[in-house]
Parts: sequence; structure tokens; C-alpha cells
Amino acid sequence: MIRPAELIERKRDGGSLTPVEIAELVLGHARGEIPDYQLAAFCMAVYFRGLSADETLALTNAFVESGATLDLHGELGRKVVDKHSTGGVGDKTSIVLGPIVAACGVPFGKMSGRGLGHTGGTLDKLESIPGFRVELSKEEFVEQVRDVGLAIIGQTDDLVPADKHLYALRDVTATIDSIPLIAASIMSKKIAAGANAIVLDVKVGDGAFMKSLEDARILAELMIELGRGAGRHVVSLLTDMHQPLGWAIGNAVEIREARALLAGEDSPADLYSLVVQAAGRLVSLSDLGIDAEEGGRRAERAIEDGSALAAYDRWIEAQGGDPSIDVLPEAPVRVEVIAGRAGCIAAVSALGVGRVALELGAGRRTKDDSIDHAVGIRCFAKRGDPVEPGQLLAEIHAREEASADRAAEEVESLIEISDDARPPRPIVLETLT
Amino acid sequence: MIRPAELIERKRDGGSLTPVEIAELVLGHARGEIPDYQLAAFCMAVYFRGLSADETLALTNAFVESGATLDLHGELGRKVVDKHSTGGVGDKTSIVLGPIVAACGVPFGKMSGRGLGHTGGTLDKLESIPGFRVELSKEEFVEQVRDVGLAIIGQTDDLVPADKHLYALRDVTATIDSIPLIAASIMSKKIAAGANAIVLDVKVGDGAFMKSLEDARILAELMIELGRGAGRHVVSLLTDMHQPLGWAIGNAVEIREARALLAGEDSPADLYSLVVQAAGRLVSLSDLGIDAEEGGRRAERAIEDGSALAAYDRWIEAQGGDPSIDVLPEAPVRVEVIAGRAGCIAAVSALGVGRVALELGAGRRTKDDSIDHAVGIRCFAKRGDPVEPGQLLAEIHAREEASADRAAEEVESLIEISDDARPPRPIVLETLT
Repeated sequence: MIRPAELIERKRDGGSLTPVEIAELVLGHARGEIPDYQLAAFCMAVYFRGLSADETLALTNAFVESGATLDLHGELGRKVVDKHSTGGVGDKTSIVLGPIVAACGVPFGKMSGRGLGHTGGTLDKLESIPGFRVELSKEEFVEQVRDVGLAIIGQTDDLVPADKHLYALRDVTATIDSIPLIAASIMSKKIAAGANAIVLDVKVGDGAFMKSLEDARILAELMIELGRGAGRHVVSLLTDMHQPLGWAIGNAVEIREARALLAGEDSPADLYSLVVQAAGRLVSLSDLGIDAEEGGRRAERAIEDGSALAAYDRWIEAQGGDPSIDVLPEAPVRVEVIAGRAGCIAAVSALGVGRVALELGAGRRTKDDSIDHAVGIRCFAKRGDPVEPGQLLAEIHAREEASADRAAEEVESLIEISDDARPPRPIVLETLT
Repeated sequence: MIRPAELIERKRDGGSLTPVEIAELVLGHARGEIPDYQLAAFCMAVYFRGLSADETLALTNAFVESGATLDLHGELGRKVVDKHSTGGVGDKTSIVLGPIVAACGVPFGKMSGRGLGHTGGTLDKLESIPGFRVELSKEEFVEQVRDVGLAIIGQTDDLVPADKHLYALRDVTATIDSIPLIAASIMSKKIAAGANAIVLDVKVGDGAFMKSLEDARILAELMIELGRGAGRHVVSLLTDMHQPLGWAIGNAVEIREARALLAGEDSPADLYSLVVQAAGRLVSLSDLGIDAEEGGRRAERAIEDGSALAAYDRWIEAQGGDPSIDVLPEAPVRVEVIAGRAGCIAAVSALGVGRVALELGAGRRTKDDSIDHAVGIRCFAKRGDPVEPGQLLAEIHAREEASADRAAEEVESLIEISDDARPPRPIVLETLT
């Protein structure tokens, strides 16, 4: 029988825990045998002292062992791929990526969290679509990945319950921001959800968890290692989150942007570049036997030839939704943000724009907040872009005039225009394998 | 309304909390409005980040405000003194000190904790005396300090409840060892218990909380400051706890030793020196208007002329006990530890001897353990003492032969004898005012 206080003390003093000790602590907590306050103190000690790679792997394994697991490869007889993002502003990557990968003939199965953020998570965005069901059973999930080649659903309750308990506790004890705890939480979900290969999109910048490239690299390398420990192939893309991804920030506005890209319409270059690179990597990790470069070419072809859009429509219908953009909710008020001077875009704070979206009602402050799917922002300004007076920089989609005007003013102040030219930001900063 | 998670995060990141924020956190916890897990995370953040002097004062004040307080000066119209020790092995100082100070004509009123330790606390030791009542009401306490000049009782339930809740939580979350948290916990109890002047005995060594003189000095200075903030006069003695204090380690054996010293019998020099110095300080802080040196002389005189012993007997009787040593429980088995060689005592680990006493049954491992008042150790060896073969080094008082033999063997191995002479240790290392 372990004594939790001794384990907390050892970690507090910089010592190590064995895999068995970590498992007993975490599983004992999940069973309700070890109280919240001991895990809270333990997580704070981990915040300051860290976890070794072995300890983090043990924690990940304990999370996975605490609940049900899926074996998609066993079920389908084929390699299935998945994708995870550490979260950012305007991140609709999965909604574009899934159909492209499926169109390339690679099964894509993703369970997604809802989470708190400046806008909703992937599930909230998908729920902008009338009729779309995110709550599928494990059996429906497997069946849809097999038959349609693509499913994105909410995490089922029986997966990683120990992580769920601990995450809820970390959320209210200021112990979220610990790289090993983040890595174990993410990877346990991915491992339990059963895909063979995973692309991790680790975002870096003021609008992301990881503020520095160095921290992002540590997190990415740790997750690759944890995936390897569980026999999964993981590739990490470190991507820029100093400015919003794409143009649209919100929920329905992001679904429109995702579908427009798949339809080959004029689309933001950063989003296009990211999904093609991520798709290339995912396809290269499948059983098609091609490399990432060829994977990227097939992704571009799937957009051009309409097969990605067809995959999108099939997918949305399979989950009960109507894929037409005409049925998406629209905000009653639109206000434009117009450039008052000439120059070059120097910066558009992702964090700042995210906060404006939250104020418009696009996100949740607390778990119980409801989301307004219609509101949001379209921000066309990207660092490095030349600007002329009168040019459209952004568009506010709001519920009321007052909130629209306030948002427009704030967004205008967030778009920094300089006299001298600034280089654009590449979207993918590094790729780690 | 404060958001506890934000306060935890601020402390975690090295920031400061306002007095109001600290009060709301601690009082909210005591009222059951803020859950244990948030305070556990907060205490661990404090373990790593510390508290400023202002924050520690605010914490102390919040503990005091959470419950009832006594004003002994107001009740008696005289300055009342108190004493606190941070705890060590063989520490019966209060039991000797109280009667000496009372015999000098200075009212002594102390509320004591029970605590976990290698031997019982002061209350447990006093409970070796048949009939002795430690649970007096506040009114009985005040009355006895007025009429008898001396009372030592258990802390009443209505004092510092917020500290009680938090201490119980810290005990199981490895957050006891934080100097500001220790200082606030001790000083809030002393302030609420109502004495005007307090001598703090901060012990230093392997058998004490504070392992280094430097840490002990920081704790002592902080407590002096906290006392000043509440209008109390505090003197701190930093005293040696690398070896047990006095000869006796246990419960009834310590009562015998305390009474023998008061009766002017042959007694350990370290204990005698400590109580005379502490008594001198306490008397100098009273309304007698004399200095510590004259206070020390009066303390010695009170021992010599029998007035301290008379005060002891009066006190024990006032709390329902029989002051005669004949009624104290005696252990059925005694085993002697004899020197096998000549030399000089180099060390007698206080921690080691304390653990042997605990194994004999003299202390508590958990709150629910019961104490065997009869068992214990008398250890005559002190660093610097010359030793001849055949000399009595220690005496084990045990319940059974087997545990006695094991204890004797362990104590023998803890008494290090060297060939070369070693200087004795002074008992009082520093006095801070």
C-alpha cells in the first residue's frame, strides 16, 4: 500500500517515482481512494520539479489503463491516422484535414475534446452545422471510420477517466501549465482512441499554450517519445500562433472557411499550407507506402479534383449534418474594419483577436457558458501584407450593433501597421519526427 | 469575490497576494467554501515560492481572526508569559519552566498541541500523571492562571480553527516544511492564547524541524516579527537538537526528570541551563521590571529554595493530578547499555534515539495511535563526555524483553565513542530578541 504523502514529499524534494507508484497514485485517485487534495499538491510539486521521461510514460500508461481503449487497426485491418492540436485561435485544421486524408484513401479517426477557449473547440465548430452529431458510440465511430473513411467525435466517457478526473482538478488548482502533465494528458487520449499514427500540431505564440519555440520543442519531443513507448508513430509540426490561423475566428465562420478551402475557393495561404503539409505527413504514415512529399502532392490533388470536398460532404451527412453552407447560422450584424493608412502589417495578436471573439460570444469562459455559433471575426490582415488606405482588414460578425462596434475598434487596435516592410511568418516553423 | 485558482497561479508564478486575498482564501477554506484541493495546491506553491513578511502576517492574522481569542492581560491586569518549542527529542522544558516562572511571581499560561512525534507532546507527558486534566475550558484556564499562577492545557477547540483545518491538510500533502507556514501556524496560536510575552525555543539539529542554524534563524526572526505585528514581545532561543535534551526520552520518565530538577536533585546540565536561561528571559519580559540576568538568578534561587517545586505541586493538583512521582507508571522491563570501551562521546543522534523511543511505544505514528506512558529511554551520554569501559550509558524502559533488547542494541549503536576528545555542545546556540 503506497502512502501518497510520502510520494508527494519525494517529488517535492526532486526525487523520482516508480511506474508502480505513479500508477497507484493516479488509479487510486480515479477510483476515489486517494483524495483530490493529495493529487492537487502532487501536481503542484510536478509543476515545479517536472517528471522524467520514464515517469511521464508511466503517467500516460496509467491514464490509458484507467479506461477502455480502441484498437482501430485490429478492427479495420488497416492503419488509421489521427491528428491533435494544442489549440489556437482560428484553428479549423482538423475539419479541413480529415476530408483531404480520407480522399487520399487513408482512414482518419479522431476523438476531440471540447475545452475552454477563445472560440469553441472542433466539436463546437462542427455543432454549428444543423443536425451534426458529435456523440457517437465507440461502435458507431469504428463503423463510420470503416465505411466513410472519416469520423470526428467527442471523446467517449469510458476513455481515460483518470485523465479526465485529474484534468478537472488541474484546471482549478493552477496546475495545467506543466509540460509533462500536458504531454501525458494529450498522448493518453490519442493512444486510447486507437489510431496508429498521429500528427501533432504544437502551436507556438501568444495565442497558444506554448509561448516559446523552446517549450514547444520540449513538449513535441516528449509526445513523440510517449507515442513511441506505446507503439505509435508520431510526427510533430511546430506551427505559428502569433497571429490567428486562416481568416475566420469563431464557429460557423470557420466551417465556411474550411469548406471553401476544400471547394478550391480563394483561401488563406497559411491554412492551405498547414493542411497540405499535415496531410502529407499523415498519408506518409499510412499503409499507402508513400513519402510525405508525395503525400502532400496527393493532398493538393484531392482539393483540386473535388474528391476532398466530396469526402467532406459524405462525412457531415454520415454524422447527421447538412453539408451545405446555406444552412449555417449567420450573425445579424456585420461591421468592417478598414485600413486608415498605407504600410505593412507588422503584427495581429492571436491572443488579442481571440479575446475579442470570446467577448462576442464565440467561446466559453466557464464550462457552463453556451456558445453563439454565428458570431465571430474574419481577419484578412497577415504579417508582411502590404496595406493601402481603405483596404478591408477585418469583418466583425456580431449579435448586436454595440458589441460589433466595440469589437471592430478592438480589432483595429490589434492590427499593427508599420511604415517599413516586414517579412511574413511561415506557418510551419519546424517538423519533428 | 476572489477566484482561488487565480491566487494559486499568482503565487505559483512568484507574485504576491494582498492581506484581503490571503484572509479570504484561508477564512473561505475554514468556512468550507473553498475546497481542500485548492488550499493544498496553494500550500505547495508557497512551499516553493515562500511568503513575504506582509503575507505571513496576513496569514497569521487570518488564523487568529478565524476563532476566539483570549486577552489574559485584560483578564488578570498583569502581564502573562508563554513559551513554545518547535519540538525535539526529550523536550520537557515547559514542565520545568512553568513552575520556575510561577515561583518567581510571573503568571504563566500555555496552550499546547499534541502533535505527532517520537514521543508524545507536552500534553501526553502530563497525562502520565494519574488524574491530570489537560482539557480545561477557557474560563478555567484564566481562573487557574490567576489563582495558581500557572496552567498548561490543550488548545481549546474554538481557537484558530482555520489553522487547525489547514494544518491537518498540510500534514497529508507534504506541505508542513515551509518556514512561513510554520511561523504563521505557531504564532497565531500564541497570539490567540493571549499571553503578552513569549519565549520561543527554536530547536536545531537532526532531531528537529529545522536542520540548519540558518533556517532556524530565519524562522525565529520571522516569528519575532509576527509577534511584534500583534503587539507581543517575543524572544527566540536557538537551541541544540543534535542530541536529546536532558537524559529522559519518553513520557513518565520525562515527568520524573522534570520534577527531580525542580527538587534540586542531580539533573542533566543541558536541561538545567536551558530552563534557567528561558526563565530569565520570561521573567525579564514580565511586569517585574528586571533584566534577563537577574531573571536567571531568581530562577536558580526558586529551584534552590524549593519554591519552584512547591509551584509544580500546586499546579499539578490544580489540574487534578497527583504530583508524587510514586504514582507515575513504570515499565516492567529495564535493560542497561554499558560502554564497551574507553573514549569520548562524539555524537548521540537525537533523531535516532527518538525513533527507538517511538518503536518502544512512547510516541504516535498516526493520530489514532495510543501512547504507552511508561516506556522510554534514559540516555546519560552527552557529546564531550569522557567514557570508561563498564560505564552506564543508557537505560531502556520497555514493555517486553524483546523490544528492550532491540532498543538497547540500537541505542548502543547510536552512541558514537571516539578516541580523541570532542568539545561538548552548548545548549543555547543563539538568543534573538
